[in-house]
Amino acid sequence: MDIQLYMREVGQRARTASRAMAKADTAAKNRALNAIADAIVRDAAALKAANEQDMAQARADGLEPALLDRLQLTEKTIATMAEGLRQIATLPDPIGNMGDFKYRPSGIQVGKMRVPLGVIGIIYEARPNVTADAAGLCIKSGNATILRGGREAFHCNQAIAGLVKAGLAAAGLPEAAVQIIETPDRAAVGELITLTEFVDVIVPRGGKGLIERISRDARVPVIKHLDGICHVYIDDEADPEKAIRIADNAKTQRYAPCNTMETLLVHENVADLILPPLAAIYREKGVELRGCEATRGILPDAIPATEEDWRTEYLAPILAIRIVADLDAAIDHINTYGSHHTDAIVSENYSKARRFLREVDSASVMVNASTRFADGFEYGLGAEIGISTDKIHARGPVGLEGLTSEKWIVLGNGEIRT
Amino acid sequence: MDIQLYMREVGQRARTASRAMAKADTAAKNRALNAIADAIVRDAAALKAANEQDMAQARADGLEPALLDRLQLTEKTIATMAEGLRQIATLPDPIGNMGDFKYRPSGIQVGKMRVPLGVIGIIYEARPNVTADAAGLCIKSGNATILRGGREAFHCNQAIAGLVKAGLAAAGLPEAAVQIIETPDRAAVGELITLTEFVDVIVPRGGKGLIERISRDARVPVIKHLDGICHVYIDDEADPEKAIRIADNAKTQRYAPCNTMETLLVHENVADLILPPLAAIYREKGVELRGCEATRGILPDAIPATEEDWRTEYLAPILAIRIVADLDAAIDHINTYGSHHTDAIVSENYSKARRFLREVDSASVMVNASTRFADGFEYGLGAEIGISTDKIHARGPVGLEGLTSEKWIVLGNGEIRT
Repeated sequence: MDIQLYMREVGQRARTASRAMAKADTAAKNRALNAIADAIVRDAAALKAANEQDMAQARADGLEPALLDRLQLTEKTIATMAEGLRQIATLPDPIGNMGDFKYRPSGIQVGKMRVPLGVIGIIYEARPNVTADAAGLCIKSGNATILRGGREAFHCNQAIAGLVKAGLAAAGLPEAAVQIIETPDRAAVGELITLTEFVDVIVPRGGKGLIERISRDARVPVIKHLDGICHVYIDDEADPEKAIRIADNAKTQRYAPCNTMETLLVHENVADLILPPLAAIYREKGVELRGCEATRGILPDAIPATEEDWRTEYLAPILAIRIVADLDAAIDHINTYGSHHTDAIVSENYSKARRFLREVDSASVMVNASTRFADGFEYGLGAEIGISTDKIHARGPVGLEGLTSEKWIVLGNGEIRT
Repeated sequence: MDIQLYMREVGQRARTASRAMAKADTAAKNRALNAIADAIVRDAAALKAANEQDMAQARADGLEPALLDRLQLTEKTIATMAEGLRQIATLPDPIGNMGDFKYRPSGIQVGKMRVPLGVIGIIYEARPNVTADAAGLCIKSGNATILRGGREAFHCNQAIAGLVKAGLAAAGLPEAAVQIIETPDRAAVGELITLTEFVDVIVPRGGKGLIERISRDARVPVIKHLDGICHVYIDDEADPEKAIRIADNAKTQRYAPCNTMETLLVHENVADLILPPLAAIYREKGVELRGCEATRGILPDAIPATEEDWRTEYLAPILAIRIVADLDAAIDHINTYGSHHTDAIVSENYSKARRFLREVDSASVMVNASTRFADGFEYGLGAEIGISTDKIHARGPVGLEGLTSEKWIVLGNGEIRT
């Protein structure tokens, strides 16, 4: 198989399909989404059989339990996939939205229309449910998509893709609007991320290694986030109860998500008051504490934190704690060591809250709320294709709108430029 | 000189300065802009002397007259530079704008704040006035910028940069907010466009060769346009008078801009009516006509157009003309051969106008107006750093807002995720 030729054909078909998708009406896109959801429920047994093929291979290959867990399709994942598609069908269609029309002195009226990006390449790892989620978001946003799932989920992804194609066809939309790469050959990824002629954006979903590799080699723009080194800063004018509740939740509600707090900053005037009760909660939940020297003066059993700790996304029950002199030191720490993902201040002081919001350079900046809220569903986007820590194009949780762009519309009456 | 080390130092200084610029208040940014404008007027003689050094070298090197023309600083260009900066000072400051705050069921209130991109690298060719324009737009949008002008304008650019730095300092802003690369070594460009750690976006301004090279080699995202292959489609339900006026203006008002029409599409039912009087106007203005076979049936002296003509940006008094069967054929031609820059329909038919607006995949789509309007000033942006034919981030004319991004703001009262 000539991978380069194959990928160009995939790209060409996607580009052609993207034109039909761009003008597809909302009803047709919703029909497709609901038809796919129906098919997933109807063919659950076949999906599980395909998944079992992948699971058997994965077990034979000695994959780790965590990976096997992500790979497995259960009754519940299948129901969630179908429900996710039905929910995307209920979201407002962003495509074709027009607004901001203003008359200009020349007589023309200038506004904007929301349009799809075109062709979106999505590269992900073991979870087969991403196949349905990503396809659903791209269909609703009027894009064509090329999906490249993990090799481990090959059979299951192909089975889901078959249902997606049938759903598209039933709604009168081109089957090539969602293509899944039909070869496990890794070279296909290298082709996909350099197909600038046919692919408008790449969304990688997976571990840091995957995202770093793709970002390094891609010629197509990439919507991504690498790290979530999130902070909570407890100010000296914080309400202690809110501070403890938020710092607890931001760290311990779940350890693995990218919006979990990794470093806690505490104003030196309230460290004595806040840290002992907070540390008791963390200890009870089995969170390892690593602290700066001042922190260890208050919490002698904390492990000494090194410079490296300030730059680490633990994704584990480990927390770095640093005591800072003031708001400036907190902002400086966050902008220096953070990953521009999500950071929160706990304070009742209006001016300090306002400064934190303006000066912290992160995709999400919060006052008196847990960093765990940085999420497409919590923000009301209805769905999420990923989180971006880039500043170009979409920033933070990326929903349907992040898969679109705006073009300029000019309405005239024969005006010419003089 | 170690170029790599030098460029890393430039990048590091820009990153540091960008933090101060991001929180600079509107008054300080405006003071800097007006101080630079004052200095440009005051030091006009010194600028002209520096420019004369460049001109002498350029003449000795045998540069073409067109390039010499672009390089030359006149009383008028100097006055225009100063006026441009004062005008940027009068524009509303986009930074810190907040909006769209909505309460979520969790109790948090989620909105957005407009923020600078951070550090913008601008690479341009001979025109020294770009130094002042680009610096002005970046200052107002709260960004730090690294400027790399053409080698031909080296002395003049350094002189302008000196005034910019003095203006920044007078307003209490960091001088490193605008840095101009101090070596003519070409390797500096290669470093600049790969400094992902310190540079957030690259804006190349210049010929297609420059932009292609930069896009190919950059690791930093690039805001760019390569081609302006713009179309006017004259529908069979066009008002003939508007059609002729627009097709004339779109081609002949100026030949070199990227928003000038390069291919005219005419519905077959009105070609007989429209083309002869239009061709007479073009002939009188010395425009060479190249037509499809059907066009040559009506305009026998037109040169036969080849497939290559549909893909060519002439930037010259040459026009390709094609007669099409209907709206579908026109849209298909534009989406196939165009450059997604600016395209217009002339029609009085509501449904056809609406379809054209939705289905033509270009940065600007117009009804009954000349393509020449695709411009930041004409659209009311107040200023323009360039035009983008990409779909990611800014599309079409890029003004202050194109140099910004939005971050999410969450206002809470101690909410946690459950």
